[in-house]
Amino acid sequence: MAIRYELIKECKQTGARLGRLHTPHGVIDTPIFMPVGTKATVKAMTPEELKEIGSEIILSNTYHLFMRPGPELIQKAGGLHEFMKWDKPILTDSGGFQVFSLGPLRKITEEGVEFRSHIDGSKKFISPEKAVEIQTMLGTDIMMAFDECAPYPADKDYVKKSLERTTRWAKRCKDAHKNTENQALFGIIQGGMYKDLREQSAKEIIDLDFPGYAVGGLSVGEPKDLMYEVLDYTTPLMPKDKPRYLMGVGSPDCLIEGVLRGIDMFDCVLPTRIARNGTAMTSQGKVVIKNAKYFEDFSPLDPECDCYCCRNYTKAYIRHLHKENEILGARLLTIHNLKFLLDLMKKVREAIMEDRLMDFRNEFFKKYGYED
Amino acid sequence: MAIRYELIKECKQTGARLGRLHTPHGVIDTPIFMPVGTKATVKAMTPEELKEIGSEIILSNTYHLFMRPGPELIQKAGGLHEFMKWDKPILTDSGGFQVFSLGPLRKITEEGVEFRSHIDGSKKFISPEKAVEIQTMLGTDIMMAFDECAPYPADKDYVKKSLERTTRWAKRCKDAHKNTENQALFGIIQGGMYKDLREQSAKEIIDLDFPGYAVGGLSVGEPKDLMYEVLDYTTPLMPKDKPRYLMGVGSPDCLIEGVLRGIDMFDCVLPTRIARNGTAMTSQGKVVIKNAKYFEDFSPLDPECDCYCCRNYTKAYIRHLHKENEILGARLLTIHNLKFLLDLMKKVREAIMEDRLMDFRNEFFKKYGYED
Repeated sequence: MAIRYELIKECKQTGARLGRLHTPHGVIDTPIFMPVGTKATVKAMTPEELKEIGSEIILSNTYHLFMRPGPELIQKAGGLHEFMKWDKPILTDSGGFQVFSLGPLRKITEEGVEFRSHIDGSKKFISPEKAVEIQTMLGTDIMMAFDECAPYPADKDYVKKSLERTTRWAKRCKDAHKNTENQALFGIIQGGMYKDLREQSAKEIIDLDFPGYAVGGLSVGEPKDLMYEVLDYTTPLMPKDKPRYLMGVGSPDCLIEGVLRGIDMFDCVLPTRIARNGTAMTSQGKVVIKNAKYFEDFSPLDPECDCYCCRNYTKAYIRHLHKENEILGARLLTIHNLKFLLDLMKKVREAIMEDRLMDFRNEFFKKYGYED
Repeated sequence: MAIRYELIKECKQTGARLGRLHTPHGVIDTPIFMPVGTKATVKAMTPEELKEIGSEIILSNTYHLFMRPGPELIQKAGGLHEFMKWDKPILTDSGGFQVFSLGPLRKITEEGVEFRSHIDGSKKFISPEKAVEIQTMLGTDIMMAFDECAPYPADKDYVKKSLERTTRWAKRCKDAHKNTENQALFGIIQGGMYKDLREQSAKEIIDLDFPGYAVGGLSVGEPKDLMYEVLDYTTPLMPKDKPRYLMGVGSPDCLIEGVLRGIDMFDCVLPTRIARNGTAMTSQGKVVIKNAKYFEDFSPLDPECDCYCCRNYTKAYIRHLHKENEILGARLLTIHNLKFLLDLMKKVREAIMEDRLMDFRNEFFKKYGYED
C-alpha cells in the first residue's frame, strides 16, 4: 500500500480533522496546503527553500510535463523526484483539467480526449490509461484519476453524463494502475453543483475503493458560498479513514472554510502567481506592493511573519524590485506567500488539536478580511 | 582615509599583482571580479547567495538608481547597503557611461550632461558635482568620478578634448567630494586608443591624487588585442600603491589578460546576463544550454565546479527550466557563472602567489578556448 491515512482527531464543533498521511517519501500532517510546481519547479523556489518554509508535499501537473519535457525524459532521469531534486512527496493531477480547458482545441470521446498541443499544434491523446501511464513514469507518490471536470454553469443532463463517464474512466484508471506499492491512485468525485449528482458520483467513485478521494469540479467560477454548500453535503459522504483533497483551492478563506468541512489537502497556484504579480497575503490582509503608499515604507511586508523576506527586507525595497521587474522581487514575495499559507495551515492544525478552530477562524477573518 | 591598498606581491614574469583593499565594509583580495547589481540587486541573487559563492564586493549603477527609486529614498533607507541588505563593500559607477549611451537623448556641455529619462522622458541633469552628490547619498564604499567615455572608433581631436574635459570634471568631483573618511573617490583615465593621449590623461588624473584609478574607455567595441595593447602602455603609468580598475570587463580571457597587465579590479554584466540567456561559462568552455544535445544529458553543467547548481542539478533539468522560462533556470545559471568567475580569480590569485600565473593562463586557455 503506497499510502496510509491516520486520523488523529476530529473537531467537536466542525467537520475538521487532524491527520497524518504516510507516503513513500515521508509523512505529512493534514490539513495541508500543497505548493504547485507545474513544470517540475515551484516557480522561483529551490527545493531547499521550499523545505525551509515548511513545505511537506508539492503538486506537479501531468499535462505540462507530458507536453514538455515528456515523461520519457523524466523516467530516464529516475523519476520526477530525482529530476527536480525534491525528495519529499509529490502529487500529480491527471492532466484532465488542463486538456478540458483547451476548449475548441480538444475533442472528448468515451475513449479519451484528443487535443492539439498548445506548444506546436501537434495531435495528442490522453485517455485514463494514458494518464496513469504518464504518472507512473513520473513516479509520483499520489496520482489522480483522469476525470472530466464540468464547467460552471452546466446543465444537469450534461453534468450527469459527465460524472458517469468520470466513473467509467476512474474504473479504467484503477485497472491500468499496477504500481500500487509505490504510488497511490486517488478517485475524484464530480457532480457539479447538484446535490443528487454529487451523491451519485460519491457513491460510484467510493464503491471503486481508492486510497484517497478528491472533490473535483469546484473553484471553477462558482460563488464561494455555493462551493461551501457543495462541500457541506459532499464531504459527509466520504469515508473517514481516507484523505480528502479539494482541488485547485488556495485562498486563505477557502482553506479555512474547506478544513471546517472536513477537507485534508489543498493545492493552488494562487499564492505563487499573485506573488509574481506583486500581491502579498499578510496577517493584515492583502498588500499590493506597487501601491504608491509603500514607496517610503521601511517596515516588513508582514510584521507577524518570520520568513526570509519579512526578516530581512522592507516594503520599500520589495516595491522597488517589483517595479523594476527584478527576479528577487518575485522570489521574496513567493517565499512569503507560501510561508503565509503553510503557517496558516499549521495554526489551523494546532487549533483543531486544541479544540478552538472556530475561534481561530473568527479571529483570522477579523484581521485578514473575508473575501467574497 | 576610506580605503587603503596593500600590495602583497608582484609577479616576476608579468605585470600581475596580488593585493588587499581595505574598505569601510571589509577587506577584499585583489585581483577581484565584482558582480553587477545594477538596480540594487544582483539579478536573481540574494546577498546570502552572493556571499556563499565568494563575492567580496559588488558594483551598482548610479544612473539607474538616480532614475529609480532615487537617491533620496535610498538615503532615507540608511544607504544602499541597508536598502539592499548587502553589508560588504559596494562600488558605484558615476552614471557617465549610461548617460553618454543615451545618444540623441543627451546634450553634453562643460557644465555636465542634460538628458531625458529613459523612463518618463523628463529632463534630468548630471554634472560632476551631481554624480558625487548622488553617490554620497548612496553611501557606497567606492565612488567613481564623472567622466566622458569616448566611443570607438573616435578621432584623435575628439578624444583629446574629451579626456581634457574628463580631467576638469575629475577635479570638480574631487572638490565636491567631502565624505572622504567613509567613501573613496576613484579617478578614471581616458584617452581612447591613442598612446600619447592615454599618457596625457594618466598624468593629469594621477596628478589629482585619487586613492584608486580606473582605466575607462575600453571594452567599448574595439578588438580585444587593441584593448590589451592600450593596457600594455597604460598600467605601467599607474602608481603601484593604488588599486587599478578596468571598467566593464568580465569575460574569462579578458580577466586573465587584464591581470597579466596589472589590473586589480573588474566588473561586468556578462556572467549574469548570459546566464539569463541560457549560456554557462564552464571549465570546458561555453555551454549553450538550449542546445538539443543536452536534452538527455544527466551530467552536471561543469564537472569541475562545486556550486549549488553543479552539486545538485543536471544539464537536462537546467535545459528544461531554461526552455520553459522558469526563474529557477536563471537562478541556477547565474549562481554558476558568477561562481565560475569568482573561482577563476581565486585561482589567479593563488597562481600569482605561487609564481605560476603564465602556466595557469596557458593551461586555462587550453581547456576553455581563447575568444577573439
